[in-house]
Amino acid sequence: MMEKGEEVKNIQVILRDYITGYPKESDMYIAINTIKLKLPPGSNAVLVKNLYLSCDPTMQFRMRSVQGPLGPVSEYYVPGYPINGFGVAEVLESGHPNFNPGDLVWGTIKWEEYSHIQNPESLFKIQHTDVSLSYYTGILGMPGITAYAALYEVNSPPKKGDQVFISAASGAVGQLIGQFAKMMGCYVVGSAGSEQKVDLLKNKLGFDDAFNYKEEPDLDAALKRYFPDGIELYFDQVGGKMLDAVLLNMKVRGCITISGMISQYNVPQPEVLSNLMHIAGKRLSIKGFTHRDHHHLYPKLMETVLPYIRQKKVVYVEDVAEGLENGPAALVGLFRGRNFGKQVVKVA
Amino acid sequence: MMEKGEEVKNIQVILRDYITGYPKESDMYIAINTIKLKLPPGSNAVLVKNLYLSCDPTMQFRMRSVQGPLGPVSEYYVPGYPINGFGVAEVLESGHPNFNPGDLVWGTIKWEEYSHIQNPESLFKIQHTDVSLSYYTGILGMPGITAYAALYEVNSPPKKGDQVFISAASGAVGQLIGQFAKMMGCYVVGSAGSEQKVDLLKNKLGFDDAFNYKEEPDLDAALKRYFPDGIELYFDQVGGKMLDAVLLNMKVRGCITISGMISQYNVPQPEVLSNLMHIAGKRLSIKGFTHRDHHHLYPKLMETVLPYIRQKKVVYVEDVAEGLENGPAALVGLFRGRNFGKQVVKVA
Repeated sequence: MMEKGEEVKNIQVILRDYITGYPKESDMYIAINTIKLKLPPGSNAVLVKNLYLSCDPTMQFRMRSVQGPLGPVSEYYVPGYPINGFGVAEVLESGHPNFNPGDLVWGTIKWEEYSHIQNPESLFKIQHTDVSLSYYTGILGMPGITAYAALYEVNSPPKKGDQVFISAASGAVGQLIGQFAKMMGCYVVGSAGSEQKVDLLKNKLGFDDAFNYKEEPDLDAALKRYFPDGIELYFDQVGGKMLDAVLLNMKVRGCITISGMISQYNVPQPEVLSNLMHIAGKRLSIKGFTHRDHHHLYPKLMETVLPYIRQKKVVYVEDVAEGLENGPAALVGLFRGRNFGKQVVKVA
Repeated sequence: MMEKGEEVKNIQVILRDYITGYPKESDMYIAINTIKLKLPPGSNAVLVKNLYLSCDPTMQFRMRSVQGPLGPVSEYYVPGYPINGFGVAEVLESGHPNFNPGDLVWGTIKWEEYSHIQNPESLFKIQHTDVSLSYYTGILGMPGITAYAALYEVNSPPKKGDQVFISAASGAVGQLIGQFAKMMGCYVVGSAGSEQKVDLLKNKLGFDDAFNYKEEPDLDAALKRYFPDGIELYFDQVGGKMLDAVLLNMKVRGCITISGMISQYNVPQPEVLSNLMHIAGKRLSIKGFTHRDHHHLYPKLMETVLPYIRQKKVVYVEDVAEGLENGPAALVGLFRGRNFGKQVVKVA
């Protein structure tokens, strides 16, 4: 254990400059700075050692100089400074009455080994440490809230027998929506971008079926194969031509729940959607949401999902990159579908 | 008055062949047939003289051989036979216990002077004849139900002070939504396709403001001019690039109510929408609907709107074509925005 107050090296992931298009590894660089492992006297901050970092699709918007589709709600990164995101950390020293050394927390943290956090009120204290701490970036963190809200709060919850389709189904959120919907008695099909992911969905996560969208020349035909009677609920995280094909295959009065459109964020020209006109004729309900409006669900999520995890009723698949040095590649891989499950970076 | 049983000439509007693209006048022709003004003995039908015919955007889909965006719910026309649609008629003879000669009815009728209606159960009897009978094709018919449902039933009803935008605002449905929303205390702006229509909206229908979308090179800029703080409710009947510009200007948690996308039905390639990704970030609620799910609102519509009409609190602007011979031109004009208000054909 290091002595308190010692200056130590602090590896950081720094944004080089504002980006356009997809983030590339070269848009970030690794810096080795130093940090004093001691809070200044009278500080209200906490000093933390960062343990796990989450790679989330929305981080790309915070790398840009212009406001993205998330609007002004998220903090933008500043070139020359570390990027940040959801993560798990251990409190080493606390000037704040809510926190003590040894506490484990999750919330927004910087991509570096150690941090002084000036406004620790936004951190959640981790109570349950009998499950993987990395889960607080996933099933027990923001993606968990997103999946739970998608099923229970944004549109009407699915009913037994409902025909449910999920795109990006093996990702951080999709794998949870699928497993929860299965527990609710739905017929659940997912799409993903590799045979390995399709195998995961079918053979490990308990989806009724799954397909590799990259191998389907005609998405409409693929959906008709799995949903000959149509789709009641579509959980969309990709948008674009998949959404367009889904619109053709929705049942009358079906619901589409949209938490993202990752396929469309970085294309020079968005894909043409030909089937939006079905929204009226089919009386569809389309609702967009972000986790931000649903944090009140967190206690309910924990109460429901912790027992599932302990009883192994839910599986959560993570893709863990080891070391901050591998953080940029892991983050960039997310936008190319290279991750296999929830992408996490283990700091140390 | 003609003697019952006499064979009389019966002018009809006939579909020549299934169409592709926009309906053209030449897709229909006028036929002069004959009809016996007497029901066969024992018939359960009614014999009617048709008075007013409604021109509705959805009629184009029924001219096609392939299922359109309305799905299988509407009846398709058959080449060589008269087209049909909503209209008002007078019962000349009835074999059905619900109807008597002299009754005025509205419902689906054929585009011809006289008809035998085999299933008269679907007709509504007209009780109130102190208002224009043509209104039963508009404010007191399907467009009235559509406007009423759009405001009160599809999404949450607007609140006082809400910022409301309406496209196709001078049409059969738009002019009603706008006037109703004004009575609910909203700030209401409409778009339409000519200066004359804009003048109508501002100076006769009481909209707070209106603009001619054909004269706006940048719809985003136009919307920002009228809604510097964003749009809470958008009533969409046009889709396409107007919807795309609206997505950029919606407030967080705004609602879009879609009853049609007339701009997109006949384009070789649908317009590219670049802003669908805002659905998630802005947490938008988008609901499609058709009047079909809301006919239970009809008594409430009559109870509310009849007094408004009598007290001249609501204006209803109609564009009345005289004579069946002018029916095809009137119907075709609807898809070119030639109508000024609700397009009706007066049969005789």
